[in-house]
Amino acid sequence: MISSEPLLRSFVEVRPESHFPIQNLPFGIFTPKVGGRARAGVAIGEMVLDLAVLEAQGFFDGPQLRSQHVFSQPALNAFMALGRPAWQEARATIQQLLRADNPTLRDNAELCSQALWPTAGVTMSLPADIGDYTDFYSSREHATNVGIMFRGRENALMPNWLHLPVAYHGRASSVVTSGTAIHRPQGQTMAEGAPAPLFAPSRSLDFELEMGFFVGLGNQLGAPIPATEAAGHIFGLVLVNDWSARDIQRWEYQPLGPFLAKNFATSISPWVVTLEALAPFRVPGPAQEPEPLPYLRSREEWAYDIHLEALLQSEAMSEPVVITRSNFRHLYWNMAQQLAHHTITGCNLRPGDLLASGTISGPTPDSYGSLLELTWRGERPIQLPSGETRKFLQDGDRLTLTGWGQGDGYRIGFGEVTGQILPARAV
Amino acid sequence: MISSEPLLRSFVEVRPESHFPIQNLPFGIFTPKVGGRARAGVAIGEMVLDLAVLEAQGFFDGPQLRSQHVFSQPALNAFMALGRPAWQEARATIQQLLRADNPTLRDNAELCSQALWPTAGVTMSLPADIGDYTDFYSSREHATNVGIMFRGRENALMPNWLHLPVAYHGRASSVVTSGTAIHRPQGQTMAEGAPAPLFAPSRSLDFELEMGFFVGLGNQLGAPIPATEAAGHIFGLVLVNDWSARDIQRWEYQPLGPFLAKNFATSISPWVVTLEALAPFRVPGPAQEPEPLPYLRSREEWAYDIHLEALLQSEAMSEPVVITRSNFRHLYWNMAQQLAHHTITGCNLRPGDLLASGTISGPTPDSYGSLLELTWRGERPIQLPSGETRKFLQDGDRLTLTGWGQGDGYRIGFGEVTGQILPARAV
Repeated sequence: MISSEPLLRSFVEVRPESHFPIQNLPFGIFTPKVGGRARAGVAIGEMVLDLAVLEAQGFFDGPQLRSQHVFSQPALNAFMALGRPAWQEARATIQQLLRADNPTLRDNAELCSQALWPTAGVTMSLPADIGDYTDFYSSREHATNVGIMFRGRENALMPNWLHLPVAYHGRASSVVTSGTAIHRPQGQTMAEGAPAPLFAPSRSLDFELEMGFFVGLGNQLGAPIPATEAAGHIFGLVLVNDWSARDIQRWEYQPLGPFLAKNFATSISPWVVTLEALAPFRVPGPAQEPEPLPYLRSREEWAYDIHLEALLQSEAMSEPVVITRSNFRHLYWNMAQQLAHHTITGCNLRPGDLLASGTISGPTPDSYGSLLELTWRGERPIQLPSGETRKFLQDGDRLTLTGWGQGDGYRIGFGEVTGQILPARAV
Repeated sequence: MISSEPLLRSFVEVRPESHFPIQNLPFGIFTPKVGGRARAGVAIGEMVLDLAVLEAQGFFDGPQLRSQHVFSQPALNAFMALGRPAWQEARATIQQLLRADNPTLRDNAELCSQALWPTAGVTMSLPADIGDYTDFYSSREHATNVGIMFRGRENALMPNWLHLPVAYHGRASSVVTSGTAIHRPQGQTMAEGAPAPLFAPSRSLDFELEMGFFVGLGNQLGAPIPATEAAGHIFGLVLVNDWSARDIQRWEYQPLGPFLAKNFATSISPWVVTLEALAPFRVPGPAQEPEPLPYLRSREEWAYDIHLEALLQSEAMSEPVVITRSNFRHLYWNMAQQLAHHTITGCNLRPGDLLASGTISGPTPDSYGSLLELTWRGERPIQLPSGETRKFLQDGDRLTLTGWGQGDGYRIGFGEVTGQILPARAV
């Protein structure tokens, strides 16, 4: 993290705590509130750089992006599909244009007025049309905690867990962008010892602190992606809140896994941070013992030191409070292993597919990634500054996830993903 | 099934055993082998009626379809999204044009040459862009059989099974159309008592005899579809073969359900048979005890008498042999209940989503819908006419599903979904 080079700066003002310095340059899809079509942009400080405007004016004239028209589309899928050389070329072009010492954009007031939008003046939407969404279960601490609570300590970690990255298919249609309010789900639950199930609003609505990555280049049906080639297929990462109704999950999940307990909504942050931007935070991952089968081995390090927080704000509180602090580096199974495993039987991934990590819990009770774990199934309620307590989320609560890599004098951040719980709707 | 009206006939020749008489009129997406773009068609006897040509010439001039241009698109999603009145209007228009006593198309040789393609001269593709694919587990006989084999007789049917239609999210990207060859998947398996898992081609590759329906009208996130309104949301049905690698499934499936054991491929038949066409085959479903919760109740009958068969042909055989006969009416949970359950926590469905039934096993051992059940986990191999035996599928085997409703003098059929097993690829 210590660099002897002077820190690269943009002519656009970027405050020291900003998530979006010139070192980051995350991609997203925005629509100006004054009107216009959804298109691609890059976050820089408190501004959004309009890539569609730059594209139309011929700034993306390198060999990968020339005449591609990928940035005027309402989703990043076409750009994602171009592959790593195109992503790198775009990043280099954008970084060059935003440098403090480059007059091209800086001194062109008319172009600046067309191509730079204040963040407050735009609405963000999903970065991609998500064809399929997969959720892994890659935190050993989380799997162990949940296993103890649902199945007892002796069956906590299933026999397969240390041999393969367990995952299930999630619901793509209900992945929503940050800010979307979530109605409390209703469904079937079965109380311990009750004679029959009950239909009612969930009484144990939870969040899950996760990260996810978007697939860039896909693969053909029947042609697995080797772990050693993962970098060419991972476009970038977002924060993921996998909202979960624990009481519904407990009743429905055997034998085929979670379904309604998860598919009512999954929220993601709008800015996709690229592997390129995250390179300074690459660290060794946890030791893996037993050694995974050969198809799950890669030579490179695939963990990232990304600090993660979840914040809760009840309606009685004037500001949110941090309820847990975790780190992406805790994950046992990494993204390269997830990609290799997902495709090993031949499953095809497509540009824009989302692969989430599963809840990222750390080793200590203040680093757990869900209320289920933080309150140990409601046995140890959280104390809020307002004097309230929480076992699970109440109506009106707002849950926010944030995260960043801390560089020397800058942060590569993910912004946030937030959502407020609304009361159950009348059925 | 007994009708006193004379049977409606088409001027297009339809043999008595054909699946596609004028009473059926299933929708699909085809491309002429001589070239041209993929577009919508309807099967009639051994011909395909080109709806894009009819649309361009103004034949769909009713209030629902006028100036919609849904049939020139390479997927039926836009047509599905129009809703039941539009589907009925299209069916009425097409049935009218194909009647033996209507000269409009019959006597217009030029239009016939443009709008009628021999089935042998076209290639079929997926009927829709499938946003999400869900697989239910709605056959009580299948769930009981598998439960006995995987968990023992005392835990066969989980406590939740009689209270809700169990389901999991499947993989949309690997849903393929009939005729697609399937490479034997490779992956991790764990032999009974072995010290560590093995990586190898699956040794227990299986089929699952299923049907599935395409969602027409969808619903907004947070707004469940009542069981009583299901008919407005179900566009039509296809045959589904949910290829399954039992050894991979057994090792991976706990606690989050099947993943790689299923996501390498799911095959569907290309023609979507509408609820309208299936109306004559509506029958009462199985009694449900205990009575389901109110949100799972509907006043109408929702079972359909559709005869189903699976056929197997090894490379040594000159023709396929029927290995099981089942019926769609055996399903315990029906489509209206599946729709209501899927959306009850608020999950949104979109036009073109596919909801499959799960394996449809009948009550007798010759009506089971998978090799796992037919051979009882390989303990009772199937005898083939070639003298070969089968516990599970071997390389070179072709597995075909077919099905139809038998009317008085006509069949409403689904054609077939077929696929051949190719050897595992080198990794």
